[in-house]
Amino acid sequence: MIQATGASQGIAIGKAFVLPHWEWELPDQKIDVADLAKEFDRLYEGIRRSKSEISQMRTELDEVVGSEEASIFDAHLAILEDPIFMNEIQGIIQRQYKVAEVAVKEAIDHFVTMFDLLDDEYMKERALDIKDVGNRLLKHLLGAPEISLPEDTQPFVLVVRELSPSQLVHLKPDLVLGIVTMVGSPTSHSAIMARAFGIPMVMGLEGKLQSPIVTGDHLVIDGEAGTLQLDPNSEVVARYTDMRKRLIAQKEQLLKLVEVPSVTQDGVAMMLAANISSLKELETALGNGAEGVGLFRTEFLYMDRTRFPTEEEQFEVYKTAVQKLKGKSLTIRTLDIGGDKQLDYHELPEEENPFLGFRAIRFCLEHKDLFKTQLRAILRASHYGNVKIMYPLITSVEEVREANRLLEEAKRELTAEGVPFLTEIKAGVMIEVPAAVAIADMLAEEAAFFSIGTNDLIQFTLAVDRMNERISHMYEPFHPAILRMIRTTVQAAKTKGIPVSICGEIAGDVNALPIWLGMGIEVLSLSAQAILPLKERVLHSRASDGRYVFEEMLRCATAGEIKDLARRYFAEAALAPGNAQPLI
Amino acid sequence: MIQATGASQGIAIGKAFVLPHWEWELPDQKIDVADLAKEFDRLYEGIRRSKSEISQMRTELDEVVGSEEASIFDAHLAILEDPIFMNEIQGIIQRQYKVAEVAVKEAIDHFVTMFDLLDDEYMKERALDIKDVGNRLLKHLLGAPEISLPEDTQPFVLVVRELSPSQLVHLKPDLVLGIVTMVGSPTSHSAIMARAFGIPMVMGLEGKLQSPIVTGDHLVIDGEAGTLQLDPNSEVVARYTDMRKRLIAQKEQLLKLVEVPSVTQDGVAMMLAANISSLKELETALGNGAEGVGLFRTEFLYMDRTRFPTEEEQFEVYKTAVQKLKGKSLTIRTLDIGGDKQLDYHELPEEENPFLGFRAIRFCLEHKDLFKTQLRAILRASHYGNVKIMYPLITSVEEVREANRLLEEAKRELTAEGVPFLTEIKAGVMIEVPAAVAIADMLAEEAAFFSIGTNDLIQFTLAVDRMNERISHMYEPFHPAILRMIRTTVQAAKTKGIPVSICGEIAGDVNALPIWLGMGIEVLSLSAQAILPLKERVLHSRASDGRYVFEEMLRCATAGEIKDLARRYFAEAALAPGNAQPLI
Repeated sequence: MIQATGASQGIAIGKAFVLPHWEWELPDQKIDVADLAKEFDRLYEGIRRSKSEISQMRTELDEVVGSEEASIFDAHLAILEDPIFMNEIQGIIQRQYKVAEVAVKEAIDHFVTMFDLLDDEYMKERALDIKDVGNRLLKHLLGAPEISLPEDTQPFVLVVRELSPSQLVHLKPDLVLGIVTMVGSPTSHSAIMARAFGIPMVMGLEGKLQSPIVTGDHLVIDGEAGTLQLDPNSEVVARYTDMRKRLIAQKEQLLKLVEVPSVTQDGVAMMLAANISSLKELETALGNGAEGVGLFRTEFLYMDRTRFPTEEEQFEVYKTAVQKLKGKSLTIRTLDIGGDKQLDYHELPEEENPFLGFRAIRFCLEHKDLFKTQLRAILRASHYGNVKIMYPLITSVEEVREANRLLEEAKRELTAEGVPFLTEIKAGVMIEVPAAVAIADMLAEEAAFFSIGTNDLIQFTLAVDRMNERISHMYEPFHPAILRMIRTTVQAAKTKGIPVSICGEIAGDVNALPIWLGMGIEVLSLSAQAILPLKERVLHSRASDGRYVFEEMLRCATAGEIKDLARRYFAEAALAPGNAQPLI
Repeated sequence: MIQATGASQGIAIGKAFVLPHWEWELPDQKIDVADLAKEFDRLYEGIRRSKSEISQMRTELDEVVGSEEASIFDAHLAILEDPIFMNEIQGIIQRQYKVAEVAVKEAIDHFVTMFDLLDDEYMKERALDIKDVGNRLLKHLLGAPEISLPEDTQPFVLVVRELSPSQLVHLKPDLVLGIVTMVGSPTSHSAIMARAFGIPMVMGLEGKLQSPIVTGDHLVIDGEAGTLQLDPNSEVVARYTDMRKRLIAQKEQLLKLVEVPSVTQDGVAMMLAANISSLKELETALGNGAEGVGLFRTEFLYMDRTRFPTEEEQFEVYKTAVQKLKGKSLTIRTLDIGGDKQLDYHELPEEENPFLGFRAIRFCLEHKDLFKTQLRAILRASHYGNVKIMYPLITSVEEVREANRLLEEAKRELTAEGVPFLTEIKAGVMIEVPAAVAIADMLAEEAAFFSIGTNDLIQFTLAVDRMNERISHMYEPFHPAILRMIRTTVQAAKTKGIPVSICGEIAGDVNALPIWLGMGIEVLSLSAQAILPLKERVLHSRASDGRYVFEEMLRCATAGEIKDLARRYFAEAALAPGNAQPLI
């Protein structure tokens, strides 16, 4: 068994198909001055075709995996419009009389080498994108053959040195049982896509194989454990086949819980709402038993387009969401752009520390027109159901007051125009900045509810960028400081009598359940995939045990002790009388 | 009066000297193939001279303004060793047979254009550095004349479109009364240098002048208010001359306070210690009446060199500092490298959000040998006086335990070697991460003292990078959350009976004094320049008033209300009986 890095969970058992990585054979003739114009035409035609291919791929992907993943290809389109890259290619053709494909190849090599030398992760990623786009352009210029799939077109485990997102899309994902790469990181674009497609993936095999994998080798990979077995014996295959079946059976078992109310054994209801980023995800959430939407991220409406969305466009989307929810609540978060989320059509400043930058409500309060357009659209949709508004990244009382002032302005306008809306609509704030925790009692005077955004709150509180591989192990949701800060917020909300819910990844972590039960949290908002596994735990839990365990946790000085308690809680709960049998 | 941006405080009154910005006149002949080698020799000679000039300037500056400012020129040396930049120049000579100066000019233009297009602040700064270095190299190749100063060499107010650090050094700072630039930001290298030299500077005049300033124009600039007056009448000149005299008189008045004990009118002592970054700054601090060093930044020992400093090298510096302090306390902060502080000889990862990255104690605990070398050097120096150790960026109890474990290891080694040290040396932690505030009571069990590092604490708590111009107005030390978090920390320290002090820029803000008096803080650590103005306020204050005002502040929901209270406090204190007369 070889231990590598898990990048997308699931088990795959099958034959390897090793993707050959070929070298382009480039013509070495020079072009005649008279043919320069023709050569430029060839280049432009190649660019045109590459662009249309990328756009098409983008559209297809948008439907399959959602807009966030599809937007990866926006970066590729941008390269084909990049003046520096294009100048370099044209310069080589014009001044050195080289054919277009050679010019493209030299330009790619030039920039990739340069960016690699800069020793900057951001630039290295750009280099990978340039390589991907450049290869596509070369393909169109050279007429290189498509990658051919195994002839019998049986499903296979794809083995490749490194994988570009285009390659992954190109290879018909339904035939790919799993993916193995020699290099790459779980945060790379292709890893994100693999997770979106639900394909198990293991990365970083380089230097760990005694002999290279060849097409036809039998493989077993475990994308969660990050392991690979080459030519496994029948016992191993049987064990993993079993494990795979069990995973699938568990999934089916969980699906039976969709309609079961989420209530602990001692009768405490725990509402499980969903975080969604698009209407497509709303379907998945409802299919997984979401009791509402606790966080509707509206960025997808703004990204992947050429201008800001109109009020009407937004209204239509919000209204559709409200109607699909049939009375269940919909909490819409206002635009959280900036930081690492950029727009094509509105330039945001490049920032040295984007997480500590000009984003979310900070952006909206400086672009009041844009903000009010969104508020009006949300208000109009609120006429059709149970809608709430939520402001992200609130840091001060003044920000909430200003946002609420604009909301009142929007309401007055709509009233004057005779447009109906939910007059008593609730406007709450996300508690995700440490300052907001420290003044939670004051914010509770201005906000109708709190939603604790644990992802950002943990990052700021621990001063750890969780995307930074060098220190991501320090991103620790079970840090005693995090427990205390969440408790401070919950206590402030309860004292002031406003509801408080939890969102962020930790909300979906089954081990954190005693924390929520212990604090008397009644609403969690989590990803659709996390709802049913968590509900299963809720059904097996007692809130009174949670309170007891949570008190114990508060006495711990280290995350390790807290996690031990969480694990013990479930081990003991599973053994306790009444829990010996599965509930369904 | 023209309102622009203040970049370095002080008032300058004098005649303008407008620095001409010239275009290089480049020869357009091509070189012969036979002369290629000669041309390369010219290039290398130019590079050699540029490097030695930069190194010399660096050394001189180091003595005048300290190593942090001088290290600006390290970036310039690095460019002359940058393989990409050098390849580009050599390529143009070799392939296009252009003379070295033309190749240099084209390479500069190429990179400057490219970096500018990238729309990335970091890259734009690199572009400026490349321009500066490139111009120096051109000067050596073309033998261009030095910038000539006004013939009478009377002191002047320098007026320039934009100023590079080299130009500033070059222009004999003692002749420069003040500086006016059309473009540029207060965080630029030249602004930093102007402040280090104590030269008043106003920036950003572009588009604000009705006619351009010419050499000989009379000017009055106020570097604090950021104003400029062109051809002021005699009344204005008289007013500003007066203001200038008053500022100087105030300074002299303050100097009389050096030996006066820092005690409030109701007898509460407030120890004013200094933050220092080098031995040179220690002199300044002592000259300004520092009662000790609350924060000795040790980064200067590690930066600006070719390898890590040895134990012996560090020991000598620490020992010198201890001895100069003659029994006053010296708190040495262990290495706070990473984030925006890089080393030439040890590669640190490029990070998307360096402030939330791999820095300070995180770096040290992964480089235990380096850390222990520093701990041993500090321990050995502790034999000669009152030394304390302080760990930066502490986020968890585990980190303190691990750091203390290594400290004990170092002690055991020294004991075994028979090397003397202060056995009861105190090891404290900086409280600058929000998590550390939340678990301050637990940290107080492991640490001998706290020092609240307000700069970082404010940045993390408010999720605001204060270097980011777009949102730096949100960096608000008087935010109610900051007051509460500091109070939480102070209370934890007092409950556990360990000392707590404040460092960071806000410690030197006279308006924050009631906060410290209100919380019963007994030690502040501040920049040398801030000590005497603050002492003057301490002498005029009553701690009992501070406690009263602080209680009022805690009831405020906004920073605006808190700052109003602080201002009122001093206005009223100044009017109160007994304060009507200056104390000295």
